[in-house]
Amino acid sequence: MTTAVSAIVPDTHADLLTKPAFAHLATVGADGAPQVTPMWFGWDGNDLLFSTLKTRRKYANARRDPRVTVSITDPDNPYRYLQVTGDAILEDDVSAELVAQLVQKYLGDGIYPWDEPGVDRVTIRVRCRKVCAFG
Amino acid sequence: MTTAVSAIVPDTHADLLTKPAFAHLATVGADGAPQVTPMWFGWDGNDLLFSTLKTRRKYANARRDPRVTVSITDPDNPYRYLQVTGDAILEDDVSAELVAQLVQKYLGDGIYPWDEPGVDRVTIRVRCRKVCAFG
Repeated sequence: MTTAVSAIVPDTHADLLTKPAFAHLATVGADGAPQVTPMWFGWDGNDLLFSTLKTRRKYANARRDPRVTVSITDPDNPYRYLQVTGDAILEDDVSAELVAQLVQKYLGDGIYPWDEPGVDRVTIRVRCRKVCAFG
Repeated sequence: MTTAVSAIVPDTHADLLTKPAFAHLATVGADGAPQVTPMWFGWDGNDLLFSTLKTRRKYANARRDPRVTVSITDPDNPYRYLQVTGDAILEDDVSAELVAQLVQKYLGDGIYPWDEPGVDRVTIRVRCRKVCAFG
């Protein structure tokens, strides 16, 4: 066992991976233009985990080109952030397990309030290639 | 004269353009992968204004491909944000005028504390093509 949260995330910024910070996930579209959206995220000790729908552009983008960049800002200090470059791995989440975990992290309890019935939840798992810490 | 801040930014979210919110600016690199960084920004009533250096990757990226996307989140409510798709226009800022304005906006007073002497400040002016408001 080690106290390091990840081999490549510095311990000084490891708290950003578990506190309810928002992540900006950037992808590239079919036309080569960037997209960026603020998102909830999870962390399993190795990968960043995002929950989205198959109908969303970020899913189509990550499916076409898995290269993504993520910026995670400390909600208590906007000058303190992590910039993660990685590769997206797409996984079905038919039981919406990840989004239930993220509701616990971000809202404390309850169920995810914004899904229509029958939507297909998917997980964008981001395997980190490079991590830069700022602030 | 009109009270609308911009023809395409809804009045409901116009405050995000002037309060000291952070913007995430996403660009695309020479290899086609996305980059995203949190930044200060200004607003002149028509365009978003970012100050950076010619040595930064975001400058090289925007010079090569002007298509950018910007996410501006309300510091008081992370579920409330603007997503702006636009085109970058690059302008020299030899007197560092923009960064001085941004210091006023974000720090209240003083001078920009992080520049080495003699750096070349440039403005990334983002002309908005499409604006989506959330929350």
